Amino acid sequence: MRLKISPAEYLQRQERVRSYLEKEKADALVLFGAKRIAYLTGYHILATERPMALVVPTQGDIFIFVPRLEQDSAQARPMIREVLSYFEYPGKEPPLTLWADTLKKKYLTKKLLADGDGYPGYWGYEGPKLSELLKSTEIKITKLVQEMWKHKSAEEIELIRETAVWGNLAHAKLQEYTNVGESEIHVALKASTDATREMLQALGPEFGGFMRGGWPTHAGFVTGPNSALPHSMSWNRLIKEGDVLVTGATGYLDGYASELERTMIVGQPTPEQKKYFQIMLEAQTVGMEMSAPGVPLAKVDQAVWDVFKKHKVTQYAQHHTGHHLGFEAHEAPFIDRNSEGQMEPGQIYSIEPGIYIPGQAGYRHSDTILITDDGVEMITYYPRDLESLIIDA
Amino acid sequence: MRLKISPAEYLQRQERVRSYLEKEKADALVLFGAKRIAYLTGYHILATERPMALVVPTQGDIFIFVPRLEQDSAQARPMIREVLSYFEYPGKEPPLTLWADTLKKKYLTKKLLADGDGYPGYWGYEGPKLSELLKSTEIKITKLVQEMWKHKSAEEIELIRETAVWGNLAHAKLQEYTNVGESEIHVALKASTDATREMLQALGPEFGGFMRGGWPTHAGFVTGPNSALPHSMSWNRLIKEGDVLVTGATGYLDGYASELERTMIVGQPTPEQKKYFQIMLEAQTVGMEMSAPGVPLAKVDQAVWDVFKKHKVTQYAQHHTGHHLGFEAHEAPFIDRNSEGQMEPGQIYSIEPGIYIPGQAGYRHSDTILITDDGVEMITYYPRDLESLIIDA
Repeated sequence: MRLKISPAEYLQRQERVRSYLEKEKADALVLFGAKRIAYLTGYHILATERPMALVVPTQGDIFIFVPRLEQDSAQARPMIREVLSYFEYPGKEPPLTLWADTLKKKYLTKKLLADGDGYPGYWGYEGPKLSELLKSTEIKITKLVQEMWKHKSAEEIELIRETAVWGNLAHAKLQEYTNVGESEIHVALKASTDATREMLQALGPEFGGFMRGGWPTHAGFVTGPNSALPHSMSWNRLIKEGDVLVTGATGYLDGYASELERTMIVGQPTPEQKKYFQIMLEAQTVGMEMSAPGVPLAKVDQAVWDVFKKHKVTQYAQHHTGHHLGFEAHEAPFIDRNSEGQMEPGQIYSIEPGIYIPGQAGYRHSDTILITDDGVEMITYYPRDLESLIIDA
Repeated sequence: MRLKISPAEYLQRQERVRSYLEKEKADALVLFGAKRIAYLTGYHILATERPMALVVPTQGDIFIFVPRLEQDSAQARPMIREVLSYFEYPGKEPPLTLWADTLKKKYLTKKLLADGDGYPGYWGYEGPKLSELLKSTEIKITKLVQEMWKHKSAEEIELIRETAVWGNLAHAKLQEYTNVGESEIHVALKASTDATREMLQALGPEFGGFMRGGWPTHAGFVTGPNSALPHSMSWNRLIKEGDVLVTGATGYLDGYASELERTMIVGQPTPEQKKYFQIMLEAQTVGMEMSAPGVPLAKVDQAVWDVFKKHKVTQYAQHHTGHHLGFEAHEAPFIDRNSEGQMEPGQIYSIEPGIYIPGQAGYRHSDTILITDDGVEMITYYPRDLESLIIDA
């Protein structure tokens, strides 16, 4: 069982960065973002007000600048060759000035690529911009790492597939535990806790990497009229007969995830509920069937929109068909009528058209698909048909 | 029971912003940050790649710019008077250009205060900076809202006190469920799920506001040698006799939280464990006893450091004494030897000096305290003494 990205793959990623740096004639890539640092090193850090920066020089060893409280964790990561640390933020002088001095000493100040002009303002952080720290350096902001994760490797796909297995288990427990009179929040927590227990028993001691409060696998939902709000919060609400539920589930492995969402109905669906469910299902099926390598993203979204048009429900649509994903919850590109570009092998998308009847109910399934060399592979596989998604009331 | 900030308080906060804008002779305050938007409106949004912006004009109604999928949620918030929406990101043109046109139409383009130069780069977002959208506008980046939450109101304090009650319950269950051979992750999830259940039953249907996966109340820990890493992740590890556990717990109410952390020991502590525990406890006690209105932040941290010095353990210290908190997990100011300023009534701090013996164990309690007019009020109240924190093995 693969539980994490291999050292060999991290080295390949770093090599790709170095080739790019050479082409750009830059001295180094600087990353301030935690997720981007993890992508190149496997080192997942909690970003706080204490600034940090990873430096990938075109030549020479990768090094990281972290607060003292991350030093021992950073040193334990085989993919990071040198750890520089400062005691604490705010410090006598801004911590990043010490880091800038190191860049100068290492002669890495002619041209830098960076993921931002300084450490972002988390939790009360204030500090100088990169361009203020290194006034005579040419600095170019780059989305290089985000470009790299737009195509997933064989290892990444393996991890994402596995997250779908555990998301499926959590979702199955969510459906099993859902009953009239139960609290929507408590059902979600109980299903997720129980599914996590199985996951922990199955995966062994190498598995983990969760901050306090983080979930190895999780399923949850919004219920009743709240389902009509796509990003609704959960409230202390008890499930009722007649409710439409919009769910979501995924497992997490080494920072990777998938996306599984289902519309469930409590009790026998009304004719109206059936109608909207079937329109949504038709739209999602069209989105999946249209998806293939070489197909323009805009064309997939347009085909989904045409289904809504045909059924005269465009006024209930509130978003496009889907987004790339895997390492971040949403990644570019988007399956949108205004997107440029086309689907390419190795890309992973959610297909999740939705319709939302104000004050009543929302209808959305989301599945994760992989674009392969000659078609599409379903990553998530929970039943999609109405019959399978009715909760006895 | 107070479950949320009152409309009256949001109006007061908005008034304070408007007074400040008048002094600055600015047309409006622009906020892109979700937490800062929530602070002024009570509208908690999931920030995604879809840009959003709240505008508080010096004169006239507050309005918000959101994607279509947030429109109905935004319209339901009484504190937001006008909702402008765009269908979807990326859109034919960058969504914020539409928003900038509205600012022009409303004559709000002479001088703006803003929490950043554009919408931050969440999840694949790319778009123009504020200064590019409004080239002839004077833009001043401000930490006004972050300054405002550096002092907590009576309502905020009430909410934070209540989060400590539920954090205490979750922590009590964590301690109760901790046993040799149990999984550290599963014990944490089970304790948190059970404590949440009581919280849901106690607080009634007005309580809620959690994104999928969010916790109404949560307790967890890192165990064994991982406790020596202050921000360690949790792994699939079973608890052993002799383990030192470093815990953390809080409830959440309307975005507010407190911080409770304890060092627990599984089985009878060794003389070394006792020694380090008592040094940590002494340092924390000194930190609490030193805290009072008018006391320099640097002086509190220095007093804690002096305890470590006296016991010759400064090499095991990895961070300062604490931070302000309540609405964000960490807020400025920090209790640090390099901080300027002093403790002031209405401020809420964590007191959490720690020592970390590499490869062995960490020792840290964290308590949340309120600076009052004449002293300190303990917000968290879980037992701090060693005897109370020993888990039978």
